Amino acid sequence: MKKPIFLLILSFAPVIILAQSSDSAVIKSIFNEALTDNTAYKNLEYLCTEIGGRLCGSPQAAAAVAWSGEVMKKMNTDSVYLQKVMVHHWYRGEKETAEIVSSVNGSKDVRVCALGESIGTPESGIRAGVVEVKSLDELKSLGEKQVKGKIVFFNRAMNPAFVNTGNAYGDAAWQRTTGAVEAAKLGAVGAVIRSLTLAEDTSTHTGIMHYDSAVTKIPAVAVSTLDANTLSDWLKTDPELKFHFRTSCKFFPETESYNVTGEIRGSDFPDEVIVVGGHLDSWDNGEGAHDDGVGCVQSIEVLRLFLKLNIKPRHTIRAVMFMDEESAQRGGKAYAALVKEKNEKHIAAIESDAGGFTPKGFSVDAPADTVAQIQKWKDLLLPYGIYNIDKGGSGVDIHYLKNSGIACIGLLVDTHRYFNYHHSDIDLFTAVNKHEMQLGSAAMASLVYLLDKYGLK
Amino acid sequence: MKKPIFLLILSFAPVIILAQSSDSAVIKSIFNEALTDNTAYKNLEYLCTEIGGRLCGSPQAAAAVAWSGEVMKKMNTDSVYLQKVMVHHWYRGEKETAEIVSSVNGSKDVRVCALGESIGTPESGIRAGVVEVKSLDELKSLGEKQVKGKIVFFNRAMNPAFVNTGNAYGDAAWQRTTGAVEAAKLGAVGAVIRSLTLAEDTSTHTGIMHYDSAVTKIPAVAVSTLDANTLSDWLKTDPELKFHFRTSCKFFPETESYNVTGEIRGSDFPDEVIVVGGHLDSWDNGEGAHDDGVGCVQSIEVLRLFLKLNIKPRHTIRAVMFMDEESAQRGGKAYAALVKEKNEKHIAAIESDAGGFTPKGFSVDAPADTVAQIQKWKDLLLPYGIYNIDKGGSGVDIHYLKNSGIACIGLLVDTHRYFNYHHSDIDLFTAVNKHEMQLGSAAMASLVYLLDKYGLK
Repeated sequence: MKKPIFLLILSFAPVIILAQSSDSAVIKSIFNEALTDNTAYKNLEYLCTEIGGRLCGSPQAAAAVAWSGEVMKKMNTDSVYLQKVMVHHWYRGEKETAEIVSSVNGSKDVRVCALGESIGTPESGIRAGVVEVKSLDELKSLGEKQVKGKIVFFNRAMNPAFVNTGNAYGDAAWQRTTGAVEAAKLGAVGAVIRSLTLAEDTSTHTGIMHYDSAVTKIPAVAVSTLDANTLSDWLKTDPELKFHFRTSCKFFPETESYNVTGEIRGSDFPDEVIVVGGHLDSWDNGEGAHDDGVGCVQSIEVLRLFLKLNIKPRHTIRAVMFMDEESAQRGGKAYAALVKEKNEKHIAAIESDAGGFTPKGFSVDAPADTVAQIQKWKDLLLPYGIYNIDKGGSGVDIHYLKNSGIACIGLLVDTHRYFNYHHSDIDLFTAVNKHEMQLGSAAMASLVYLLDKYGLK
Repeated sequence: MKKPIFLLILSFAPVIILAQSSDSAVIKSIFNEALTDNTAYKNLEYLCTEIGGRLCGSPQAAAAVAWSGEVMKKMNTDSVYLQKVMVHHWYRGEKETAEIVSSVNGSKDVRVCALGESIGTPESGIRAGVVEVKSLDELKSLGEKQVKGKIVFFNRAMNPAFVNTGNAYGDAAWQRTTGAVEAAKLGAVGAVIRSLTLAEDTSTHTGIMHYDSAVTKIPAVAVSTLDANTLSDWLKTDPELKFHFRTSCKFFPETESYNVTGEIRGSDFPDEVIVVGGHLDSWDNGEGAHDDGVGCVQSIEVLRLFLKLNIKPRHTIRAVMFMDEESAQRGGKAYAALVKEKNEKHIAAIESDAGGFTPKGFSVDAPADTVAQIQKWKDLLLPYGIYNIDKGGSGVDIHYLKNSGIACIGLLVDTHRYFNYHHSDIDLFTAVNKHEMQLGSAAMASLVYLLDKYGLK
């Protein structure tokens, strides 16, 4: 019985080789077009430098909604539409100020920014003594006696030992999200957080914080890492020093905003959808370039690549710019709710929200056999540095789709520089390398091409 | 007979697992130490900002020789020594100036730098009409009639379609190395080369050029890519415009310089050597940070990691700072000659000379079975992003050792930003990310650890 099997293999072989070779050629053309065309990079430049930081509910976020819709319309997509979402509308106010006042070391202005959704200080600011902690246990061990009336200075640095800087962020981000609540429970009047970056520099890094309705709200700011070092040093020689900071943030009522979707209709399965996405909102202190202007322009670029290269998808391809990732993920939730309501079939969703750095793979949130199907395409993507396709988390906006039984996929990129820029005043267009960003666009488009051609069983 | 085999496997299994697990633990400790320690990054800062660009034969190169020797002595290596090499001593002279003078568009100062080892212009500079070409064929087709008395403007941009930017460099670097000779053959009086970078910016990128003793020497400069675009645009509306540039470079007699070597003596095989290296010389317009201050401090860091973690090598480990990579590779040649003369046995040499970017693998210039041995360690290195171990070229300085039958290995890193900095005024300490650079140090140290422990058959 050996011979027939041998013949069978032979008779299939040319077909398999042909398919592989044709896929290679298409993927090569995708990378070639992405790497040599300027459209996506120019889009990022406009979004970052003409529109700027796009805080939820802000005029800039509204401008970005209008602009991204227009861009996709001009590309001759089959349709572009908005999905309404109500979002928080927090306003940073005037530029924050802060100083350390020490009878031993003198005074020093330091760089701070309000944490996202913090309350503001009184007009005259908050001036108080400081207790420094590096862990929640340390804070709790100080107790109310030492914390009451003070500013708590959370100074746990991101740990550079983590090879994946995302894990270093995970290890330290509690200070920002829950530090103020924990400090207020012990009677603190303010919270100062070491900026979440591996760099020692003057940039300040904001990001969402949360209050607890049962605990007094106190204002919170992030201080640059260099200034955090100074504050820590000065506290050693002058534990009685005062920290004085002033912010004027406030909340407006919730406001109307939108997810923006552009789509190319599928030829064979128009009612089955593959989503690529990023989030259109960003923090306001920088330009929201890596986080996540890049994800938006890459998603638009996936559509452009299909149109330019005349790749006619069998399934409908949607580029979705989600709104409100940074605050309450109203966009991601609303999109998933609509999918459920309309009972739309989705094959997969891919999100890029880790910055415009060199892509290295895809993290697939799906059953093992689905992951294995995607892993079979690794050889096609390896020439472009895509070596890491594994089971893992996907993206903050798309993971709400998981219950619909689809593959939720995150674009994995080199992480080493991301947190230097993340949520900061230096997350600027100029910090994004075109070649790196466009490899990511092409990687996403290539995966969409394969998902569309072969589907997922 | 099945049972005994089964038992045999079982009896070996714990040993194999233990060895693997112990290697994992050592490699983890290497990465942990590299990522959390500041020594190498501080070394780079000193080399770049206190010493600066280290042109062969310059006082800065001499200072770097003295400094790197001192650094390795203070680390308690077993020995540090110099190997004399005679090197070219070219001097850039005053800051170069250039302008475009057009009766249609007006005048514009443009940014240029002399190519490495170019002759200078006369005191008043060179002022002539310009012919633009993008290939050697184009130049030749113009012929002497159109080139004589002109400045040839070589304006072939690096091609972003190459996924590996090294290939884009390879495709365009002929303009810099041989452009002036080819232009002079047709009677040109000067050569202006588009800077070899994928960025469109104001940086200027030098690098070695060559003359031909049978052809008149003409001066050559690189112009920034933005200014190259302007020159090209203006030529379209005013083919008669003049380009005027002034340089004052000159040659001094060859001068004495040195390779600097630090070593840790092997316990079992002190006469068998594993080399890690980079090159200490650099271009002078920037700080020689990525090229190749990084390779030097990473090599020193490999020694520090072994000493700090108390890893006692069985073979002798040498960190070699080669001199004169950028000009005539006298250091690399001299080191290989001495190895041959002394009949020293070398196991392997690893060079880092592609910038301080995220490492992704090793390129091994050795027979296939040697490459296969090294590939077997891939699983140990994959957690750190080292996925690409393959046959390929190694490094400019170490490849002269190849005839000694050793494995010559190049550290492969992410290439996308390298040529933005390469040979330019923006190749500065501040352009190097500590986390990325130290992953490279740790990758090299881990490979040295494995080479030392298991050898190469």
